[in-house]
Amino acid sequence: MAERIWTAGLVIIGDEILSGRTQDKNVSQIALWLNLQGIRLTEVRIVADRTEEIVEAVNTLRARNDYLFTTGGIGPTHDDITVDAIAEALGIGVEIHPKARAVLEGYYATRGGLNEGRLRMARVPAGADLIENRMSGAPGIRIGNVFIMAGVPHITAMMLDALSGTLEGGKPLLSETVGCWVPESEVAELLATTEKRHDGCQIGSYPFFRDGRAGANFVIRSTDAAALAACAADLAATLALVGRDPVPGGI
Amino acid sequence: MAERIWTAGLVIIGDEILSGRTQDKNVSQIALWLNLQGIRLTEVRIVADRTEEIVEAVNTLRARNDYLFTTGGIGPTHDDITVDAIAEALGIGVEIHPKARAVLEGYYATRGGLNEGRLRMARVPAGADLIENRMSGAPGIRIGNVFIMAGVPHITAMMLDALSGTLEGGKPLLSETVGCWVPESEVAELLATTEKRHDGCQIGSYPFFRDGRAGANFVIRSTDAAALAACAADLAATLALVGRDPVPGGI
Repeated sequence: MAERIWTAGLVIIGDEILSGRTQDKNVSQIALWLNLQGIRLTEVRIVADRTEEIVEAVNTLRARNDYLFTTGGIGPTHDDITVDAIAEALGIGVEIHPKARAVLEGYYATRGGLNEGRLRMARVPAGADLIENRMSGAPGIRIGNVFIMAGVPHITAMMLDALSGTLEGGKPLLSETVGCWVPESEVAELLATTEKRHDGCQIGSYPFFRDGRAGANFVIRSTDAAALAACAADLAATLALVGRDPVPGGI
Repeated sequence: MAERIWTAGLVIIGDEILSGRTQDKNVSQIALWLNLQGIRLTEVRIVADRTEEIVEAVNTLRARNDYLFTTGGIGPTHDDITVDAIAEALGIGVEIHPKARAVLEGYYATRGGLNEGRLRMARVPAGADLIENRMSGAPGIRIGNVFIMAGVPHITAMMLDALSGTLEGGKPLLSETVGCWVPESEVAELLATTEKRHDGCQIGSYPFFRDGRAGANFVIRSTDAAALAACAADLAATLALVGRDPVPGGI
């Protein structure tokens, strides 16, 4: 029986990523974290701070996946429209979450008190739960299968930490890397035939140029540890057979 | 009369980005380059190495934008399926481009010669033009409004360089940054009202925590240099009025 694969989509909300000003770091940290939960990231969309674009991306990806994550746009300023856009996507209203308000009141008690902007961070789609954030008081939000996270990567990291182990998932996708100082174009056929010999394994080829030499890392992925090890060993042996030194673990 | 805004979409093709193994660098470099051409990046999709997902993303984003860029999946190995997927999206065949073949023959003359894998890199959607790549021989591809670039960032950089100044665009989006050691939540209202006073300007707020202190950079964006300068000056003056020291240029 084919095993159940759990999937997630991710919507990155932020003009600053689309302008090139800010280098995104949430895709890779969320991808790695999801894999540890046994959930596979299947698609990412990076959209502008515009309601209709957020609504479309959220509705498409939440319907296709078990989980949908968003990052960005949950701060106190006028360009933070994520909560309203997601409420619109879900066809529900927005309310002040009493616990979020209490958390923010506590956090800002010694920092000038709550004001209108800060209170915006207690707004959630109606019926939502909070995701703890020990860093800045402002919580993440869970509503159904939608998880609303911060744009600042280390705040999102804390929210992910709070969620660890709470989501249902399947087997993590395992990977093993075999490196080789070879132009990938010399071993393309060998990679394809090796992959075909090992059901349930995919081999990705990631070339690079370093110190004037061509090399590549071949990443084998599988949810089955034994199949993965067999495929990696086979690939290393096959490379050695054609006079190429495999580098276990990658270069 | 409203000015014409030229837009582009971007499809990042690669399991290695979705697995979290590789940190993407193409979004920001392509976004910055597009802006210099007077073209705005409106949406990015990161999809797996699967034909149907590439086809859907390419067809959606090329219909919505003046230009569509892709990165990844144009190498010599079995997991490089971008050319075939884009040909399928466009409803056309795939052919060997004679000039690409000649370029590859020249490049590999002293590197073991052409083989089946290497010849794959001369395959293009029927009728396509090449985009020069001085680095590795394998060219990028242009077909209609679709631009097919490498996954390796420094090869894509060379392809962008070859394209510079060749695409029609409008006015670049200009930006100016004003930083301030202030929690953004204290000045949220001030930011919104300042933005409202300046037509054609947007203010984005990007908070950070550094050395135990809260600060934020406020990025003003406009295609009009005079409007931009006026908005930035107004924001700095308004921050100073409430006793906050603005940091021109950002923190």
